Order: sequence, then structure tokens, then C-alpha cells
Amino acid sequence: MMPRIKPTLLFFEDEQASAERLADAANLNLARIERHRFPDGEIKLRLPDTLPTRVVILRSLHQPNEKLIELLLTCKTAKVLGAKHLLLVTPYLAYMRQDKAFLSGEAISQKIVGSFLAQLVDAVIAVDPHLHRVKSLQQAIPVAQALAISAAPLLSDVIAAREANPLLIGPDEESLQWVSQAASRHHFDFGVCRKIRLGDHSVQIELPPISVAGRHVVLVDDVASTGQTLASTAQLLLGAGAKSVAVAVTHALFAQDAIQKIQSAGVQYIWSTDSIPHASNVIYLASCLAEAIAKIYGEH
Amino acid sequence: MMPRIKPTLLFFEDEQASAERLADAANLNLARIERHRFPDGEIKLRLPDTLPTRVVILRSLHQPNEKLIELLLTCKTAKVLGAKHLLLVTPYLAYMRQDKAFLSGEAISQKIVGSFLAQLVDAVIAVDPHLHRVKSLQQAIPVAQALAISAAPLLSDVIAAREANPLLIGPDEESLQWVSQAASRHHFDFGVCRKIRLGDHSVQIELPPISVAGRHVVLVDDVASTGQTLASTAQLLLGAGAKSVAVAVTHALFAQDAIQKIQSAGVQYIWSTDSIPHASNVIYLASCLAEAIAKIYGEH
Repeated sequence: MMPRIKPTLLFFEDEQASAERLADAANLNLARIERHRFPDGEIKLRLPDTLPTRVVILRSLHQPNEKLIELLLTCKTAKVLGAKHLLLVTPYLAYMRQDKAFLSGEAISQKIVGSFLAQLVDAVIAVDPHLHRVKSLQQAIPVAQALAISAAPLLSDVIAAREANPLLIGPDEESLQWVSQAASRHHFDFGVCRKIRLGDHSVQIELPPISVAGRHVVLVDDVASTGQTLASTAQLLLGAGAKSVAVAVTHALFAQDAIQKIQSAGVQYIWSTDSIPHASNVIYLASCLAEAIAKIYGEH
Repeated sequence: MMPRIKPTLLFFEDEQASAERLADAANLNLARIERHRFPDGEIKLRLPDTLPTRVVILRSLHQPNEKLIELLLTCKTAKVLGAKHLLLVTPYLAYMRQDKAFLSGEAISQKIVGSFLAQLVDAVIAVDPHLHRVKSLQQAIPVAQALAISAAPLLSDVIAAREANPLLIGPDEESLQWVSQAASRHHFDFGVCRKIRLGDHSVQIELPPISVAGRHVVLVDDVASTGQTLASTAQLLLGAGAKSVAVAVTHALFAQDAIQKIQSAGVQYIWSTDSIPHASNVIYLASCLAEAIAKIYGEH
């Protein structure tokens, strides 16, 4: 059997570190996309002159809009340059929450962005995509191969290494899928709060009916954005007698003053994966992503 | 014959003033798209509950990337809500300059963004799109109906009203199409400079072989971005004895300190159209755009 040519991993400068780890773990050739941003906001991209048949594109989609246009330019150009199979590795996948029109006339962005991506690539790998009513990643991104992997086991291992007999708490009902998965791996106690959203920056939280007094609590969720929910929940937990509160999230989205807000609420530690580059990153996804890539290529 | 239902003009809040002028001139129902931007950069859009068959979307594409994603969301949603024919009115159309790979591996963004737009809408109207090697707007945006209109006659009228016997100068050979058109309408003298590229970051401008001494010069171009070329050219003209220098451009893109740079070079007046909202706007495109809309609907 002829040895297959190594796939190339295309990446952007701001993800250099995670791209290097992934190329190493998945045995890929590494090639940075040269990117120039003009004063008028237009983007110029330059890819390698020639590409192998199989190309992996690494792109986490926090602050997604400009990156989605960059993906459009990248994917169309990669096909011109010889790529036949494009695999998008998007550790943080955006636009998955708006999966229906909550009010008439609303754009169902999950469906629209999902179809947009499906027209660009042949396969997608995402980490803990925030799916709700739509259950599978392939439904959200109707592409030939779609693989959602979870960082919950990795979060669980970090928690196990750092806290004795922790209590895992999810800040809302939606977090149950991640909290229960993280808890089951090391048989941790767990529960989820009830959350009533009053606006982008205002929520009301109700703790689960579990005694938290004297417990080391770890708040577990897929994503932390404004930090408001985590901060409020931490305050409630400490008010209810928790001995300490830490935070473990897959995606360190952390907008603006989120970290300060969370720390001010009494949270001692914040742990995250490198799906989004951030100071709180303690877990590297490279080996998990490499396994997923092998699976995609095994099926292909 | 049954009266046709009035088309709806969809617009975004930052173009409210030009949308009102256009709706008035073209007899369209006006409907603002509700837009919410989340802290993580995702956009939520809400369109009117129901839409007529014909929908016009007004969107100038300066700082284009986020706006292109908003257009994706808007167009896909408009079709779901009843629109059958989408007409994009984009007074400033972005991404038209990169019409070939100047270096191997470069994304040909004109072609890619053009195809992207062509998949979203049925017709396009743009004002002075910066086309070069690709000659027609329909080639750049392969859509059923594409109409490029020029603001050069309107610039010419403003110049005629404000300067006696002006000399029109284009800052480079590419500006010839706009300068000659603006000049011919009122039989103004005109010429274009030669731009000699000395390296990546250095250009030399050569004035045309016309006496500028004592003349009121108006620099005419389709777009002003950094203002560097306009400022340098104005300095050369004043150095060569021009009595005054003004600037007339279709698209007031003006990045960062461009206005300051141009004024420091001795430019007395800056005139532009409202294709991009800016303090220098003195020309409203509404009536021209309304004519173009009537033409599109007449053909449809």
C-alpha cells in the first residue's frame, strides 16, 4: 500500500500554540495562513502555493463573524490550490444557541451558519458544541462527517487531581449534560441550578436541593462568557456555606471584565481547555482532537 | 392590471438616514432590522414577521466582514419570511480590488465574496464599485441582475456649483474612469497622476503634464481610505503652484487619521456622497439609487 501524503494543518497566527500541539499529536504538516487586514477592514489571505488532498483547518470561532468570512476565503482558496477534503477543527463552535425563532422574524442563526459551514468543508470536529433542541452536530452542520467530542472527561480529571471529594454544580439545567458526564467519571456528587434569565447581563439563580455546607464546590459548564452566572452562583454557594468554589469550563470565552467579576465573587481557581486561548487554560485538547481526526480519516 | 404590492426596504440602524431618503425616493415601505450583538460577538437579527415578494436590502459594506455575515442571516431569513426576489443595494461594495492572486496562494476575494453574494440575492445595485481587470459588476457578482451606477455626474455637479473653472486631477491611472466622466459633464480640464511603486511601502506620485499654477484643483477619486495618496498629491499640486486643492470622492471610507492628514496637506474642502455615512457627505444618492431600483424592477 502506498503511504498517504501527510495532511496539512492550516492555522491563523493567533492559534499558533494550539496548532503546533495539534500538528504534533496528529502528525500533520503545519502551515500558517498569512493574513493582512487593511484599514478599511478587508482581509487578504495567503495560503501555501500547493496543498495536499487532505487539509485540516484549525479555527476556534469566538468573536466569530470576521473569522467566518476568513473561513469562506480559506476554504474556497484551499480547493483551488489542490485540497479535495477539508476538515474544519473548530474547538469552539459559535452560533449554536439560536436553534429556533424565539420571536417571529428572528434569524435562526444555527441553521444558517451551519449550512454555510457545510457548504465550505467536508468534515467538522467541534468540542462541546452548545446544542440544545438540535441533538447532533451533523444536524446543525449538515456535512458528510461531523464529530462532537466532549472535554468533560478532561475537566473531570483536572478536578480529581486538584480537589478531594468535590461537589460539582452546573449553573443551569442546560449544563446537566456536561456536569453529569464530568461527575460520573470520578463518581463525584453533582447537581444543577435553576436559572431564570432576565436579560443579557441579568439572571436569577436557584441552588439545587443539596447541602453545600463545608463542601469544595466546582462549577462546571461548557462555556463562560460574561461570567455573570458563574459569579452569582459562586456567591450563592459561599453564602450557603460552601468551603471553596472553583470554576471548570471547556470554553474560556470570558468577555470584558468576566474574570474580575468571577474572582470578586470569591472563586479561587478557574480552569479551562485551550479551545480558546486564555490565561486560565490548563487542559490541552490536542490529543483528543488528534483521536477525532484519526477517526474522521479512518472513515473517509 | 392589479397594483403590485410595494416592496419593503430592510435596513440597519446605522443607515437609518439614507434608508429614509431611499424609501422616500423609491416609494418603498421601510422596515428596520432589529440587531442585537452578544458579548461573545454573535449577532441576533429580527426581521419583520412577514415580507412582500420583493425586498430591497440596503447595506453599504465598509468594514465588511461582520456585515457580510449579517447579510447571510438577513437574506436566508427574508426568504423564509416570504421574500421571493431580493435586491441588495450596496452603495459601497467591498472586496472588489483583489480580482486576482498577485502572489501564488492568495485568496481571490473578489471572486469568492462575489459568488457568496450571488448565492444570497437575486439582484445587486452598487455605486462606483472598484472594478479593474474584471470589467462588469455582473462578472464580479454573478447574479441575474447587476447594476453599477456612477456618482461621477453628481460629484461633477457639486464641483461645478462650488468652483469656477476647476481642474480635475485623479491621483492615479485607475482613477481615470471617474475623473474623465466627472470632467466631461461640465467640460472641465482634467488629468491623472502616475503612481510609481518604489517598494512595498513607498510610492512616488508624478503630476500629469498640465500647468496647475493658479488653478483651483479638485482631486477626484472613487474612494478615499488612508488619505495618504490624496495628501501627497495635494502637497505636490500646491508645491506646483495650484491656487487651491479640494477633494471629491464617491466613498468616504476615511480610516483613522485620514481627514487630518488630508487637511494638513492643505486641502480646503472634502466632498463625498452618502454611500458611507461621514461628516464630508454633501451628495445624497437616493434619487440615483431609486432610478436604478426602478430599472431593476422594470426588467424583472
